Amino acid sequence: MQPHVVIIGGGFGGLSAARALACSPVRITLIDRSNHHLFQPLLYQVATAGLSPANIAAPIRAILRYQDNVEVLMAEVTGILKHERKIQMRDRQKKDLSLSYDYLIVATGSWYSYFGHNEWAEFAPGLKSIVDATKIRKRILLAFESAEMETDLQKRKSLLTFVLIGAGPTGVEMAGSIAELAHQALKFDFTHIDPRDTKIILIEAGPRILANFNAKLADRAAKKLRELGVEMIHNARVSHVDAEGVVVGDQRIASNTMIWCAGVVASPAGKWFEAVVDRSGRVKVDEWLNLPGFDEVFVIGDTANCIQNNSKDGEPLPGVAPVAMQEGRYVASLIMKKVQGEKSLIPFQYQEKGSLATVGRSFAIVELKKFRLVGWVAWVAWLLVHIYYLIGFRNRMLVLIEWAWAYFTFQRGARLITMESQE
Amino acid sequence: MQPHVVIIGGGFGGLSAARALACSPVRITLIDRSNHHLFQPLLYQVATAGLSPANIAAPIRAILRYQDNVEVLMAEVTGILKHERKIQMRDRQKKDLSLSYDYLIVATGSWYSYFGHNEWAEFAPGLKSIVDATKIRKRILLAFESAEMETDLQKRKSLLTFVLIGAGPTGVEMAGSIAELAHQALKFDFTHIDPRDTKIILIEAGPRILANFNAKLADRAAKKLRELGVEMIHNARVSHVDAEGVVVGDQRIASNTMIWCAGVVASPAGKWFEAVVDRSGRVKVDEWLNLPGFDEVFVIGDTANCIQNNSKDGEPLPGVAPVAMQEGRYVASLIMKKVQGEKSLIPFQYQEKGSLATVGRSFAIVELKKFRLVGWVAWVAWLLVHIYYLIGFRNRMLVLIEWAWAYFTFQRGARLITMESQE
Repeated sequence: MQPHVVIIGGGFGGLSAARALACSPVRITLIDRSNHHLFQPLLYQVATAGLSPANIAAPIRAILRYQDNVEVLMAEVTGILKHERKIQMRDRQKKDLSLSYDYLIVATGSWYSYFGHNEWAEFAPGLKSIVDATKIRKRILLAFESAEMETDLQKRKSLLTFVLIGAGPTGVEMAGSIAELAHQALKFDFTHIDPRDTKIILIEAGPRILANFNAKLADRAAKKLRELGVEMIHNARVSHVDAEGVVVGDQRIASNTMIWCAGVVASPAGKWFEAVVDRSGRVKVDEWLNLPGFDEVFVIGDTANCIQNNSKDGEPLPGVAPVAMQEGRYVASLIMKKVQGEKSLIPFQYQEKGSLATVGRSFAIVELKKFRLVGWVAWVAWLLVHIYYLIGFRNRMLVLIEWAWAYFTFQRGARLITMESQE
Repeated sequence: MQPHVVIIGGGFGGLSAARALACSPVRITLIDRSNHHLFQPLLYQVATAGLSPANIAAPIRAILRYQDNVEVLMAEVTGILKHERKIQMRDRQKKDLSLSYDYLIVATGSWYSYFGHNEWAEFAPGLKSIVDATKIRKRILLAFESAEMETDLQKRKSLLTFVLIGAGPTGVEMAGSIAELAHQALKFDFTHIDPRDTKIILIEAGPRILANFNAKLADRAAKKLRELGVEMIHNARVSHVDAEGVVVGDQRIASNTMIWCAGVVASPAGKWFEAVVDRSGRVKVDEWLNLPGFDEVFVIGDTANCIQNNSKDGEPLPGVAPVAMQEGRYVASLIMKKVQGEKSLIPFQYQEKGSLATVGRSFAIVELKKFRLVGWVAWVAWLLVHIYYLIGFRNRMLVLIEWAWAYFTFQRGARLITMESQE
């Protein structure tokens, strides 16, 4: 019987690991609670009606269809017995199951964190899944519809105010995208409101937007955001969120549509293992990405706190797709070596892939070590990178067409407000 | 002040009327409770993961963007005061509003009817809106996922049994599409089940499928369905539906996924008017599509019971898109003439456009008076007609690409099971 590798999570990390094990003499079981792999870097496009959910998601089964050594299970993991080497899970019909492993790769990702204020989630949803994205899309589009019907000027103003909390890449990309939706795509669509009156406010707790980027690049992005009509508030912590708006410092901002782009917290893997975790709940792994003391257990991607030896600031690797993918492939190669009985195992070394962020249409910033790019050329680079990494030929082509259409017409294709029939 | 035309409903009828009035000296208000026009003839493709919702829906505002005499309102009509010439409606924020009209076009469509058994709706949803379609898509895809995890053979069989109630065009097209999904698109995706074991059962109360078509054509379609592995039960009325299956005659069919494709009932317009309605709730209109006694009120599309003078069987016009579109344009021309003070008004005369139905991939039947077409050529005709009528250049192109992709690869692009994040 071949060794059994269980992978939890079909995101960038888990999928890369499964694919890298394609020709290895192992049996793989990949477990995910959803049926699709999601290209999260473009999720903000679904939330702002630029792309359809199916453009950026593909069934995990379909992706791994021709890989004979993988079985895909749609189930939710509820616990891990690390000493017994067993996974506990529950399937869609609420039946409890368990599964033994020889090797385990945990790639369960992260979730948004409200820093102890989970009651804010209702008013300021975050953006992690397709359901989140379509929910936010509905809120944004309904805000314009309601503003069109609203005669009270104060209320109309609040309906046309969009607040984004957190100015990392997601917050910045959302802000740029909402600005263009309001100022371009909807320009001629309403009678009573002028969508150009839309206010988009980006709130950041730190001193500047895009903290992970070089300061000069971030400044250029900020300038572009201002051109698009986005207001930025820095050094400001949100102290309260309710249905009518947010409180920042001693200022109350009335808004009907708030979106949480701030903190993330790792999946509960740390609890399952009773492991040492960091402030964000990430499992502290050793240099081989092992759960310390368990050579057969690996934790990768957003769920892992991995500090590289050459890290200048002692910070763990960021929760981005290239890290998860490299970790997935590395762990796969390690398992292969272990199966073959090799003893000398080289520690994980991340190859820096650079960072990208886009601001509205045809503007982006790119940073790779000392190399920097700004503007239209950077945007083309951003486009090529995203298209290249989109899983599946068809999605790439369709997304290109959607974008070409949006680029030349300023239109948005997925402006649907769906609701229950009987609602 | 120009006369005020109010149109209720942004479906085929309402939208055709609004567009036909583009150059008329009238003010138009189009009211719809959703923000999009839906191309219903392709809704079954969304329900079977072939197309994305945004492929077959377009925002009404965007469609009418360049027509200056139209205002679009997203609101739900709650009543009509026919003597006062007033609409009562409720907007998204639950505020009650009213609106006066000089001319009124009611194009509020139809809904599915469970013949007095509304409790069946929960177990056998119908297909009218995008939310219905994504709900059915989720059920179908989850049935395969659950069957993959199921070890009890009886339960697995029930999970792989799909029951379609009603063998009109929707039931037939759904049956063909599910058959191809199971037998082609999912062929290599599962480990424990063989999707080819899928049972698809089409139940029809009448003596044959596609009752509206010529019997020979319907026979050819039935033959094709049998080839695709669809079982047909004729002359059989469903007497009970619950979570575990249906009862047909004295036979119980165990199934986890049932879809209602049987009866429709008109919108409540008849009640608003306290008008004479037929068995399906359709308002009986006169030869000018007027609500009898009210020259300024028109009822069109699925909401109207319109019997043509030359109708051989005395049957009202069917609830299909060409009827609604012709009625919409006719009513628009009538309003134009009335505004100009013309007295001699020609009654509505429907121009037969023929019927089409498709069965799976590359097979269709087409019937136009004595002219009939079957097979691949008919399917190309079906394709061209649907592409032609899809609103908006972009949708046409994208749908073509989706179909080309599906045709050559046997794949489905929109196989997403979306669920609440915290679910």
